[in-house]
Amino acid sequence: MAEDYRQMWADLGLDLATHDALLGSVSQMYGDVYLSQKNRPKGMEYFDFVISEVHGLRIRELVDAKKEGKKIIGSFCVFVPEEIILALDGVSVGLCAGAEFAFEEAEKFLPRNTCDLIKSAFGFKLARVCPYLEASDLIVGENTCDGKKKSYEQMSTILDNLYIMDIPQMKSDSGKALLKAEYKKFIQRLEELSGKKITPENLKKGIETVNNKRKAMNRIYKLRNANPAPISGLDALLMNQVFFYDNPVRFTDSVNKIADELEERIKDKNGIAPDNAVRILVAGCPMALPNWKVPQIIESSNAVIVGEELCTGDRGHHILTEGNGSSVEDLVNNIVDRYFKIHCAVFTPNPDRLKRIKEMYKEYNADGVIDYNLQFCQPYQVEGGIVESELEKAGIPVLRIATDYSAEDRGQIQTRLEAFIERIKG
Amino acid sequence: MAEDYRQMWADLGLDLATHDALLGSVSQMYGDVYLSQKNRPKGMEYFDFVISEVHGLRIRELVDAKKEGKKIIGSFCVFVPEEIILALDGVSVGLCAGAEFAFEEAEKFLPRNTCDLIKSAFGFKLARVCPYLEASDLIVGENTCDGKKKSYEQMSTILDNLYIMDIPQMKSDSGKALLKAEYKKFIQRLEELSGKKITPENLKKGIETVNNKRKAMNRIYKLRNANPAPISGLDALLMNQVFFYDNPVRFTDSVNKIADELEERIKDKNGIAPDNAVRILVAGCPMALPNWKVPQIIESSNAVIVGEELCTGDRGHHILTEGNGSSVEDLVNNIVDRYFKIHCAVFTPNPDRLKRIKEMYKEYNADGVIDYNLQFCQPYQVEGGIVESELEKAGIPVLRIATDYSAEDRGQIQTRLEAFIERIKG
Repeated sequence: MAEDYRQMWADLGLDLATHDALLGSVSQMYGDVYLSQKNRPKGMEYFDFVISEVHGLRIRELVDAKKEGKKIIGSFCVFVPEEIILALDGVSVGLCAGAEFAFEEAEKFLPRNTCDLIKSAFGFKLARVCPYLEASDLIVGENTCDGKKKSYEQMSTILDNLYIMDIPQMKSDSGKALLKAEYKKFIQRLEELSGKKITPENLKKGIETVNNKRKAMNRIYKLRNANPAPISGLDALLMNQVFFYDNPVRFTDSVNKIADELEERIKDKNGIAPDNAVRILVAGCPMALPNWKVPQIIESSNAVIVGEELCTGDRGHHILTEGNGSSVEDLVNNIVDRYFKIHCAVFTPNPDRLKRIKEMYKEYNADGVIDYNLQFCQPYQVEGGIVESELEKAGIPVLRIATDYSAEDRGQIQTRLEAFIERIKG
Repeated sequence: MAEDYRQMWADLGLDLATHDALLGSVSQMYGDVYLSQKNRPKGMEYFDFVISEVHGLRIRELVDAKKEGKKIIGSFCVFVPEEIILALDGVSVGLCAGAEFAFEEAEKFLPRNTCDLIKSAFGFKLARVCPYLEASDLIVGENTCDGKKKSYEQMSTILDNLYIMDIPQMKSDSGKALLKAEYKKFIQRLEELSGKKITPENLKKGIETVNNKRKAMNRIYKLRNANPAPISGLDALLMNQVFFYDNPVRFTDSVNKIADELEERIKDKNGIAPDNAVRILVAGCPMALPNWKVPQIIESSNAVIVGEELCTGDRGHHILTEGNGSSVEDLVNNIVDRYFKIHCAVFTPNPDRLKRIKEMYKEYNADGVIDYNLQFCQPYQVEGGIVESELEKAGIPVLRIATDYSAEDRGQIQTRLEAFIERIKG
């Protein structure tokens, strides 16, 4: 860290000793997983810096923003519309849920067969080590899966600023009406919280800012169809993870610079993986920071990830929000249209996701698909069975990996993966 | 069986040999669990007959009804409004999902960590042993939990007459609007299927028939507050299970007769359990026929069940549908009002369920509550944690039992239960 943030952390109520241990372990992991990579794009230095300051500079910015009267809105899901948060001069941050932390404490509230993402969110709160959560003025829980939906009831006993956003389960007219009503309620809640009013102007600006961030990510994604791959899947995943909590304008600039650099690399045939590396598309459950386990195993096995059909991936930025509209109503409709298209497995049926996986497989010249499931995530797990059989029918090699945040099954995953790669190579 | 139904079963496409084995085992189980009980109400003979003819006479009635042009509507959940089915001259039947059957086959479609109720529904279809399902013209799947919601996508690959009904997750205005839209869609679908039209008259009649069935069950429930208990929990559960597929008028008469008999028994202090039996309220996941495991263990441990806060229990019949209204619109609103009050754990938050558990505990003079969880049922499992801590705060003894359809953990449950009963006796 560039400066001493201990007072700030103490003021936020963090448990300093435990927090030190956490930061030490993330830093160690980042060194092992990220800094050990060869020939990375130079622009990734920005992300190295972001991670080195993950609980430092960015938190200082949040604290400063709070002093200026801005509100910090923490959330766990791509269904929480950042456009609205930005329009009301708020700061949107994704909350810590990617590491095994204080699970024993979390299991006092949750069944053991709860996915690690949910346990992690509880663990970080109970251990008081997530400054994003502690800095948040409002924490938005959303009714996506049963696990989250019901866990938020428990979370409300340990958090007094939890706000629940309902999410539909079917792409019907009434499902869409429900989402719209929820987004309008959310606007009202944020207006009350911030004392500011939503207008067509600030909402348009919010849409533009978020779209720019998405467009920059989409530029990177498009370039990943090149062979050799110009950027590692690990680096692309990191960008996707930082997408959720960085300053959006600075993030956009940094990503666009990397996209410029990748264009040059492609011209020079300068890849991060050899031409003959097996090209993998990863589909499934979100990988929250610092959950890098499966991508690291893949990319240390003579394979490279060329796309992520994940919330921390394509699902988070592929679709833009239409920016035209002269009233708040029009613009809210545009936002609802955009988010209603997200093909999350909580929807039933969810054919667009399968369509998108096949599209991405083709667009990025992938050789195979890994369906990644976070153990006990029922929606993606059941859908994984459908994805597997449909991809097999289409002649697309597919491997299902169900895992958690622990390191215990690394060897087993590695073995299965190597067999999968051999199968692809034929 | 009173007559030979083999031709009928063959015509329905059942696998006769496997079906024989199933019926044999249910009959054996019924003898062991039910017929071995002492001093049962005489009126229970009707239910003994129903079970002896469970795949016989009732299926013959369904087949005859089909010949008369009536449609058979199969379903898995208390959110499917029988009022509407009856109004359109249909027959509503709950589908088999209470026994371990062909789970290996089912697990080709579903993750292992799927609850047994869902696996059972698949198993019965895959093994072709459920005549209710095979006789159904339309099978209604409903989006309650993630497990069911996503499994229906797999089920649609093996069933061509599956209809999906969406269910809200929050008791908000838009949640209610969604439920109403779904019930209207359901009316439309049944009108198409039956070629009949919904009218205020037939809908009123449907409401009346279902209310009568509920009132009869509520009479029985009210009488269970007596000490000694006039009827066993096993017998009450059986009535609740048969509630879902018997002829509603005949069912109502049979239940009312038992209620008359129980009134006499109470006057005579003629109970099925001794005065000092520990009185248990069971709350939690539905127990589908023939899932009698936990009640049997309870009632063979010097305890008696005095109420079920289950879908196969109070949640299925406590609330009536308001019958007044001069238009279809009015009556549909009444139906929506009624079903929207069901305090199923798929709703968040769900404070009315906790309130009802406490109410029932008091009404039925219970000594303790058993929170029954079907393994991998996330909504009731997470809510179980809340129920447990809230009941403990209120000084109500509570024991959580998570189990499945297998017999493996019977001994373990028995031991825990005995300790719980000792704790209550103090």
